[in-house]
Amino acid sequence: MSSSNPIVCLNGDYLNAGDAQISIFNRAFLMADAVYEVVTVIDGGLVDFDGHMQRLMRSLHAIDIRSPLDRNGWLSLLRELVARNGIDLGSLYLQVTRANTPFARDFLHPDPNLTAHYIAFPQKKPDHLDPPEAREGIKVITIEDQRWKRSDLKTVQLLTASLAKTKACAEGADDAWFVRDGWLREGSSNNLFLVKGKTIITPRLTRRILSGITRAAVMRYAEAAGYAIEERDLALCETKDADEAFITSATIFVLPVVSVDGNPVGTGRVGKVSVAVRELYLNACRERLT
Amino acid sequence: MSSSNPIVCLNGDYLNAGDAQISIFNRAFLMADAVYEVVTVIDGGLVDFDGHMQRLMRSLHAIDIRSPLDRNGWLSLLRELVARNGIDLGSLYLQVTRANTPFARDFLHPDPNLTAHYIAFPQKKPDHLDPPEAREGIKVITIEDQRWKRSDLKTVQLLTASLAKTKACAEGADDAWFVRDGWLREGSSNNLFLVKGKTIITPRLTRRILSGITRAAVMRYAEAAGYAIEERDLALCETKDADEAFITSATIFVLPVVSVDGNPVGTGRVGKVSVAVRELYLNACRERLT
Repeated sequence: MSSSNPIVCLNGDYLNAGDAQISIFNRAFLMADAVYEVVTVIDGGLVDFDGHMQRLMRSLHAIDIRSPLDRNGWLSLLRELVARNGIDLGSLYLQVTRANTPFARDFLHPDPNLTAHYIAFPQKKPDHLDPPEAREGIKVITIEDQRWKRSDLKTVQLLTASLAKTKACAEGADDAWFVRDGWLREGSSNNLFLVKGKTIITPRLTRRILSGITRAAVMRYAEAAGYAIEERDLALCETKDADEAFITSATIFVLPVVSVDGNPVGTGRVGKVSVAVRELYLNACRERLT
Repeated sequence: MSSSNPIVCLNGDYLNAGDAQISIFNRAFLMADAVYEVVTVIDGGLVDFDGHMQRLMRSLHAIDIRSPLDRNGWLSLLRELVARNGIDLGSLYLQVTRANTPFARDFLHPDPNLTAHYIAFPQKKPDHLDPPEAREGIKVITIEDQRWKRSDLKTVQLLTASLAKTKACAEGADDAWFVRDGWLREGSSNNLFLVKGKTIITPRLTRRILSGITRAAVMRYAEAAGYAIEERDLALCETKDADEAFITSATIFVLPVVSVDGNPVGTGRVGKVSVAVRELYLNACRERLT
């Protein structure tokens, strides 16, 4: 879709992506003063819409921005983008930026009565449901977590994550896992899981980990299907005893991880639990579209 | 200047601020993938231009962006903004953003051969040289440092600093100092100093502190004027024994700090050393304009 000039939304107006322009005084551009969400579209419907809305409202509240739209306003907006772009399968990105005083850059927040700016755009992914990574698994490297201390908030302070992902690819891997003092946190833009037998383990939620909507859904569906779920501190060295590993996010669903820092996880091939959990998740999503 | 629609620069074009628009796919807007500098203008000349250029190049190199202009290109640009806006006193903001693939959002860096985007705009400050804060001093509160671990790089990941400054003002103070485990780091957008007798003390440079251009200049000029300079770990509790405190940055030069967390520093009034250092700095700047 990168060259197809989709229809996007800018503060309530629908226009071609090439015409969607914002001021250079926008506070996301100047100081990362914005939060975002990514909502997946399957069969033209929204996956876990209310989960994403709750997290959006939580992120906005935490940094003291009022949402420019209520839940139904966001729903109409996203459905409009689905319709106008004819999206059957893909994702929708939305971002809310604190308003700025015209032509001013100031660390101090402006008048809280100014309406926040918002944008949303689609990203089509034709091979979204059956990408090669789901069949072959991905390789990750680990990187010291250098992010700010509120990674539980979905802000656009993403330079660190972008640098980590790029470093991973430069080293022949597909993604990076953030670690600190030997403890696993999460992937550059996804949550991580290890599998031991019929037990699925993921780091417990703290302020250093994003409370993934897909993470929560996967845990719910896997538990209902008979897997044991553990949320706890998870050491990097435990990857050596794991049978499988996988990552989750709204855009990639569930992807098997077959190596960590060059060491195979389990057999080094895509494992049964990862495949089963991916299928469980996709089937459950399809039954619960908004 | 916030309502006066200055002339700004957008990728080499000069236009009214109101017409300076960037794509919503700009990587600074979506993921804080950009670095910046602020250069002060006094008497129509640039203060410490080469210091800012060196730091800009260092920041760009650290996150693997090639500068779209060389030193002389930046100098021409800034001088053009000074001339077109008739700036005698004020500051110039410049920002370089990694290029993006059209209509795409991807953590992975795009083709490094794409030319980085850049913008620059002026901010006039009529009372810049004699603001009330210089005469009355400012109050600061301390805040736990939640920023990422490379605060030595001047990136636009500034949400934390913006939140800190806003919290300080909401609590009746003027700015916030970042502390960690009882150790002082720096202000929300400035470096901090304590004064004990004829000794001026500031936290030593680490990856958690910006290497302030004004910080370095103030140390240089103060040392030449006979003050002892100490760069070392500095505990918050040392503010209680300090005679004075001040902060430095390109835009505020030197400002006395008269209270920290509600406790007066020294006498609680603007101190002689702070006033002297501010004057030393401004006089030295004027002799060294570019």
